[in-house]
Amino acid sequence: MANLSLRVDLNADMGESFGVYRLGADEELVQHITSANIACGYHAGDPSVMRRTVKLCLEAGVGIGAHPGLPDLSGFGRRMMQVSPEEVYDLMLYQIGALQAIARAEGGSVRHVKPHGALYNMAAVQPPLADAIAEAVLRLDPTLMLFGLAGSELIRAAERKGLRAVPEAFADRTYTPEGTLTPRGESGALLHDPEQAAAQVLSIVRDGLTISKSGSPVSLQAETFCIHGDGPGAAQLAAALKLSLIQHGVEVKPVT
Amino acid sequence: MANLSLRVDLNADMGESFGVYRLGADEELVQHITSANIACGYHAGDPSVMRRTVKLCLEAGVGIGAHPGLPDLSGFGRRMMQVSPEEVYDLMLYQIGALQAIARAEGGSVRHVKPHGALYNMAAVQPPLADAIAEAVLRLDPTLMLFGLAGSELIRAAERKGLRAVPEAFADRTYTPEGTLTPRGESGALLHDPEQAAAQVLSIVRDGLTISKSGSPVSLQAETFCIHGDGPGAAQLAAALKLSLIQHGVEVKPVT
Amino acid sequence: MANLSLRVDLNADMGESFGVYRLGADEELVQHITSANIACGYHAGDPSVMRRTVKLCLEAGVGIGAHPGLPDLSGFGRRMMQVSPEEVYDLMLYQIGALQAIARAEGGSVRHVKPHGALYNMAAVQPPLADAIAEAVLRLDPTLMLFGLAGSELIRAAERKGLRAVPEAFADRTYTPEGTLTPRGESGALLHDPEQAAAQVLSIVRDGLTISKSGSPVSLQAETFCIHGDGPGAAQLAAALKLSLIQHGVEVKPVT
Amino acid sequence: MANLSLRVDLNADMGESFGVYRLGADEELVQHITSANIACGYHAGDPSVMRRTVKLCLEAGVGIGAHPGLPDLSGFGRRMMQVSPEEVYDLMLYQIGALQAIARAEGGSVRHVKPHGALYNMAAVQPPLADAIAEAVLRLDPTLMLFGLAGSELIRAAERKGLRAVPEAFADRTYTPEGTLTPRGESGALLHDPEQAAAQVLSIVRDGLTISKSGSPVSLQAETFCIHGDGPGAAQLAAALKLSLIQHGVEVKPVT
Repeated sequence: MANLSLRVDLNADMGESFGVYRLGADEELVQHITSANIACGYHAGDPSVMRRTVKLCLEAGVGIGAHPGLPDLSGFGRRMMQVSPEEVYDLMLYQIGALQAIARAEGGSVRHVKPHGALYNMAAVQPPLADAIAEAVLRLDPTLMLFGLAGSELIRAAERKGLRAVPEAFADRTYTPEGTLTPRGESGALLHDPEQAAAQVLSIVRDGLTISKSGSPVSLQAETFCIHGDGPGAAQLAAALKLSLIQHGVEVKPVT
Repeated sequence: MANLSLRVDLNADMGESFGVYRLGADEELVQHITSANIACGYHAGDPSVMRRTVKLCLEAGVGIGAHPGLPDLSGFGRRMMQVSPEEVYDLMLYQIGALQAIARAEGGSVRHVKPHGALYNMAAVQPPLADAIAEAVLRLDPTLMLFGLAGSELIRAAERKGLRAVPEAFADRTYTPEGTLTPRGESGALLHDPEQAAAQVLSIVRDGLTISKSGSPVSLQAETFCIHGDGPGAAQLAAALKLSLIQHGVEVKPVT
Repeated sequence: MANLSLRVDLNADMGESFGVYRLGADEELVQHITSANIACGYHAGDPSVMRRTVKLCLEAGVGIGAHPGLPDLSGFGRRMMQVSPEEVYDLMLYQIGALQAIARAEGGSVRHVKPHGALYNMAAVQPPLADAIAEAVLRLDPTLMLFGLAGSELIRAAERKGLRAVPEAFADRTYTPEGTLTPRGESGALLHDPEQAAAQVLSIVRDGLTISKSGSPVSLQAETFCIHGDGPGAAQLAAALKLSLIQHGVEVKPVT
Repeated sequence: MANLSLRVDLNADMGESFGVYRLGADEELVQHITSANIACGYHAGDPSVMRRTVKLCLEAGVGIGAHPGLPDLSGFGRRMMQVSPEEVYDLMLYQIGALQAIARAEGGSVRHVKPHGALYNMAAVQPPLADAIAEAVLRLDPTLMLFGLAGSELIRAAERKGLRAVPEAFADRTYTPEGTLTPRGESGALLHDPEQAAAQVLSIVRDGLTISKSGSPVSLQAETFCIHGDGPGAAQLAAALKLSLIQHGVEVKPVT
């Protein structure tokens, strides 16, 4: 009988500090993930934070990714904004390029791109924005992987352009029967127990499905799992999740 | 007798618009220069303006350069700020990298770097800042040329790092007997007559000297000449200067 | 029979320059309007521009108004953003307060408030945002007038709070049969002829209606008319419009 | 013999959070101080943080002060910048005005002004900047108190304008024999022991002098004492200092 090895990538947002402001336990978190999405100065981050974060990733052997966002520092890129595909294309080139340069200067390179916050959400459902993002990635480096919500327009756009599309699910969020995330405001939206998070990841990786909050199965293909880095205990959850996955025979390695 | 050909590069700041704000007659000016210093979003410019400007340069065959500045949009990067060499290094990587990406996406590439405004002036006299700039350029691409004030610390730093250092003089500004620019506030600081500007350029290129405002000769080695792009009549001055230089047998071509 | 005098207020956006960037012919325009909407530093304007503009208004006897916008300098406050009523309330206090202070320091005072761009449009149709704006105005100074699109939610919110609500129409834009503005993209959206603009203003002031682009009458109550200040010829249009109105016996005075 | 009561004001910087970024333990700190210097959105703070902080102060009975800074969010207003007196005047009006409006809307009022960071330091030694600040305060409200470094140009400028000048010393910093603060980099620059801090405050309030790091007496007149709010243990230090002062018979009340 074939012994198919299961494999997952664990990603987290990093480098979201700004100037004197500190956000996220990057030094700890970087030990437990395999891909880092590094803020690029628009919704968070600044050139010095970016370089510090790139070094952290290189030391920890974590895959470096660009995490470009909307030009909205005061709203942390979480507010939907009316942006045209052309503006998004330009914003992507700028932010990804800035991180590529910093990575290059430190002897590394950017491996993936994952849009942030409202841009991620808009690109999941608006094909023109998804196309603009995929086109920018393609023009910059066709070997860059593009992370997007599993089943979203962004994944479809990446595939259309011939990019390596990496569908993403969430380790610590529950799903509705329709396959969308339970809104943060609702009870039971978050999984705080690493075992439950690990069970969800395992189920998705092994069987391509998870169990929704209401008990029904939800079909879900994903290769990378997002761990939120800014809550208290984020690093501990990541550590416990990773350990649990390894114990279940899952390889936790950067996606390729 | 040897017929040595004289050659100069004419550079101007471009891409200094921002959002709805328009600055500079870039479309006209680009016809008369050979190297463009493109603002990178910190003191001026934004991703869309940068891409538009890169396209202008590619169409006109003008050399693309990065024009990184201090993080001071409201002061247009002209206010001295107390920045550390490490901050400057990071600011340079970020801004140059953003432009490199945009140029790459458009099928071009960045050829040179010229710091803007207060950063240019500080780098001319503060060796640690000059070194930080040169180091960032070196790390990003050792074939990038670094433009700096003729005789300045920035030129020395570029040479120490083994970079192609391109000393710059000003076509439309007069010099003091000490070889510094006549301060803008003083009468006679600016040369409005293209013939006078051409004469100054010729004298510097041919003889390595110009005549100061007070009549004494000033020794000055320069390979590129800055034309200010934001005044009224900037494009006309540039056109007339270029024509006059060509009529005097000077090749006006991008520096290499 | 009583000879009722007709009276209108002409308003324009002013103080939209920023740092070195110049926008609008404020010095000329201020001669032909009666109320100025002064940008407050979020979508445009800065403290120095604000003070310069306040002085212009005081010298010209033009009513000073606050023109607060979304925190979006790169988009000039024209991009819809997902903001909560509470955020909008805070943004209003901050921006109006800043202008009140500057006006006070110059010996004047703010008379009205008109939200800018996307905020104006969102407040026209979203009651919670309209209420937040009206509440902020009320708390700051219950004698402040609130300008809003004629027939909009913002006007209703102002009336609910007991504020002086001033409905606004547009002198140089045409209307659809439904009473909304003809979208800028469509042909015939703009009235370039001062006589036509004057005719529209007269018709609205005298009869409470105008003729839509398709020829049908549109009911419209308005006391102040917006003149766009940033196009070429804005000041000339304003001057001609004002003259034409006066010739038709309309008083052109600041609204009270 | 008369039993003169001693009295001090304890001030701390507050409201320095920005968007999602949290800085300072304002909720705790506000319990132990008598005057709060609230950031006004330029070096830190935003309209929502400002309003939240104003409410904290009103609930705790703490004097509300404006803490305007340089336009340098990425540098937290700590980097010296080349600003003209006119720019500083405008920056002051804008920022103080914004806080006045927010305080007014919440039923309170601004009582004092204390410039932040590099602006505080520059105003201490540059008379033109000090005058610009004092003039802005005077124009906005002649009853506003102006806090400045004891013995500084800012205090002299406030006095020249007829403002209530409140000289400030530092509770938790040591002094050099020349009366300046021991630079932060040097050992012994900070007093971590509340008893030592209290002793220094007492000595200054009672005798008008403190003992420098090298043991010599330093003459120092001060009515308000700054407690740094952003270090770990800031609230505890403030609480212990206040208690110690009260136990020594000193009234700890907002300055008037």
